[in-house]
Amino acid sequence: VTPDEFRAAGHRVVDWIADFRADLAARPVMARTAPGEIRTAFPATPPETPQPLDEIFATLDRTIVPGITHFGHPRFFGFFPTGSVEASMLGDFLSTGLGALGLTWQSAPALTEVEEVTTDWVRQMVGLSPAWRGVIQDTASTATLVALVCARERASGFALTREGLQGPDAPLVVYASAQSHSSVLKAALVAGFGRAHVREIETDAATYAMRPEALAAAMREDRGRGWTPCAVVATSGSTTCTAFDPIADLVAIAAEHGAWVHVDAAMAGSAMVLEECRPLWHGIEGADSLVLNPHKWLGAIFDCSLYLVRDPEHLVRVMSTNPTYLQSQAAAAVTTYRDWGIALGRRFRALKLWTLIHLEGVEAIRARIRRDLDHARWLAAAIAATPGWKVVAPVPLQTVCVRHEPPGLDGEALDAHTRAWCDRVNTSGVAYLTAAVLDGRWMVRVAMGAPTTERRHLEETWKAMQDAAGSAVR
Amino acid sequence: VTPDEFRAAGHRVVDWIADFRADLAARPVMARTAPGEIRTAFPATPPETPQPLDEIFATLDRTIVPGITHFGHPRFFGFFPTGSVEASMLGDFLSTGLGALGLTWQSAPALTEVEEVTTDWVRQMVGLSPAWRGVIQDTASTATLVALVCARERASGFALTREGLQGPDAPLVVYASAQSHSSVLKAALVAGFGRAHVREIETDAATYAMRPEALAAAMREDRGRGWTPCAVVATSGSTTCTAFDPIADLVAIAAEHGAWVHVDAAMAGSAMVLEECRPLWHGIEGADSLVLNPHKWLGAIFDCSLYLVRDPEHLVRVMSTNPTYLQSQAAAAVTTYRDWGIALGRRFRALKLWTLIHLEGVEAIRARIRRDLDHARWLAAAIAATPGWKVVAPVPLQTVCVRHEPPGLDGEALDAHTRAWCDRVNTSGVAYLTAAVLDGRWMVRVAMGAPTTERRHLEETWKAMQDAAGSAVR
Repeated sequence: VTPDEFRAAGHRVVDWIADFRADLAARPVMARTAPGEIRTAFPATPPETPQPLDEIFATLDRTIVPGITHFGHPRFFGFFPTGSVEASMLGDFLSTGLGALGLTWQSAPALTEVEEVTTDWVRQMVGLSPAWRGVIQDTASTATLVALVCARERASGFALTREGLQGPDAPLVVYASAQSHSSVLKAALVAGFGRAHVREIETDAATYAMRPEALAAAMREDRGRGWTPCAVVATSGSTTCTAFDPIADLVAIAAEHGAWVHVDAAMAGSAMVLEECRPLWHGIEGADSLVLNPHKWLGAIFDCSLYLVRDPEHLVRVMSTNPTYLQSQAAAAVTTYRDWGIALGRRFRALKLWTLIHLEGVEAIRARIRRDLDHARWLAAAIAATPGWKVVAPVPLQTVCVRHEPPGLDGEALDAHTRAWCDRVNTSGVAYLTAAVLDGRWMVRVAMGAPTTERRHLEETWKAMQDAAGSAVR
Repeated sequence: VTPDEFRAAGHRVVDWIADFRADLAARPVMARTAPGEIRTAFPATPPETPQPLDEIFATLDRTIVPGITHFGHPRFFGFFPTGSVEASMLGDFLSTGLGALGLTWQSAPALTEVEEVTTDWVRQMVGLSPAWRGVIQDTASTATLVALVCARERASGFALTREGLQGPDAPLVVYASAQSHSSVLKAALVAGFGRAHVREIETDAATYAMRPEALAAAMREDRGRGWTPCAVVATSGSTTCTAFDPIADLVAIAAEHGAWVHVDAAMAGSAMVLEECRPLWHGIEGADSLVLNPHKWLGAIFDCSLYLVRDPEHLVRVMSTNPTYLQSQAAAAVTTYRDWGIALGRRFRALKLWTLIHLEGVEAIRARIRRDLDHARWLAAAIAATPGWKVVAPVPLQTVCVRHEPPGLDGEALDAHTRAWCDRVNTSGVAYLTAAVLDGRWMVRVAMGAPTTERRHLEETWKAMQDAAGSAVR
């Protein structure tokens, strides 16, 4: 690919993407590919000689696009919203084209400083105090791992410089609600705590929020047996049903034991651009760290996960392997982001956040989030008003948890019915929903937030849900 | 940004990138920005309303491009080569435009299966047996962390399901050479081993390769005090001077203790596309895991780090938090890549590897790597033939370690001279080199591998080095 060929090919790529996005609403939302179908469509061995550019577009159309569940589709309501706003894509293209690599500040001062600027913009947008400083990670899984490693080292007096977790000290314990994301347990296991030292705290029967008195009791119990409470992971907007743990209460309890408080606001953190949502994470200023993914509801292209901390020096002390180098850098007053996470090399991720906010403006982002809250309220009301249908959890934000409960169906038969109609909606291609378990019973999540979703897309989806559930009991 | 605006803006972005790359050779290689200069060029608060697209291009030209050390510049010889081949950029654009998200196989079958295909292509290209399976991670730092966590769990009989590293078992120990990359120590510390349980093994005085007898002795010593040898990290192409540990010997020693062998071939692994280089990692088939970064010498755009393992089931057993889900998936014969690493969400990184190999072909990639080896041999010979100049380490691949040793200069004065002429080259903007310490003495690394480097760029750089060193002693 010569520079001129690159220019021409790049234009074709942009046109292909623009066409793909223009046609997206007409495509099935869910991939309908059989396992192995795509793999076998590719040559088993790499080509020795250059192959035609045309073949790439043909493969995209024929094989790849049908093999993707489209998170950017206006009738995508699965998992959680994932950013696919065009303004952000432009910044990501630029990141690729610049080919910058963050290793040290000097290797790309712009990469470091634009990241400082844009993460601070997001901090302001969600109403956090200037005491927080941000860094972009790939995903919340990584950010939570970094948080738990920091918590581990604070609790152990930096045992990593000595015997690590393999010393004679009392076991360190991590606490999270039964509704916390699977990445919390995974991070604790990767960090070496062990399953026996991760406590799942009971949640409220109505709100699914962590019960502070249950946390306090668990910590007391662990102290009693000689263990050390190390970290509490509070969830702001749980994955299953958007439950909010009472952060202020948890912070107060953690403080009694000197435990770290990390807040997982991966999806719901974006809602805090609306002042009216901020009471949901009341007490947030008392936390030590939090993760908020702009690549979810805020609209940035994946991957762009924002990890915010109150004490970056602590982070550096845990993550740096180069203390002499660091001392000179501290003097030079630059940020060495490689010591704020696991990866050494860093992509110029701040560009996609910058172009998103620059080209959209905060007002438009707020309006989009408000629109999604309206959509959720509309759907919840429509469901509640329809016989046989039920909203099964509170709807504080953009996720509606729903069940169709036809007379005479319960227990496993109801579960089978729920999963069947959800599958039917998904395989129809009309919309994409995620089935999940709440209180031991299957239900279906309808999660708003795709950038192009309008009321009519939701109406079409609600009709498809009713059709799918109705035909199932007929 | 409406769809039509996106199309027009995308074209402008491609043109801007094409122009930027066409002008790159004429720019200074190193960023010349003062700390804070870029940060203060941006508004301190995010804009409420949409801002003009033009301002993005103006900021790129005025602020961002001068604030980047250009790894893709033909006279960039710093750190290590970093992929910036246009063919790969096109695939990365497509990844951004598709907005696919790998959570489960179903969420994007194409993302999973194209990753299976392309990682297997690279496996074939570097001559590994079909016993290996690959996954794309962000960086070698993450891949090495995953490897050490897997090693930890194999050695402890999956203690993560019980007390983790916080149980009564004997401490687990990690071994790596004194020339190993800092990410090895960092990974071990993040994984909880503790500094006291990471052994730095002596290297050969001439080759800087790990001494097998020193490893054997350290393992015996640790056994003797009741510790458990857990993992050996072998380096194939060290960062400082491209040293190769004798993998076959290390594998045999590790096997006596049941220890895991992980091979860090992050940069040098790409050289194995040439059959004549493969003796350098003789014994590789005996390792348990290895990391090779296509985003380094192979030409893929950052980030694209290939982690290869011989037993993916083990990986899944360690990383999965969802065993019931997994059982059904295993039956369906699909790969669940989220259980092959730390992040849950995954970007469609395979596209940039696919377009790179598809559009370039393996022959051209081999030719490029061979050209870089030639360049290194040429420079090493030129240096060796020049009075006062010295090649201070073997040159097995593309990195030449050099020192200018004027008569009468030694010790700290020589170090100061070395760092001064390296700085002078870098600040001149002509070329970019990295100074590093070898055997307690500063030297300068000249690392080939930028895609557009021709012999004349190297000649210009060698002249700049001589000028810089000459003027320093005058």
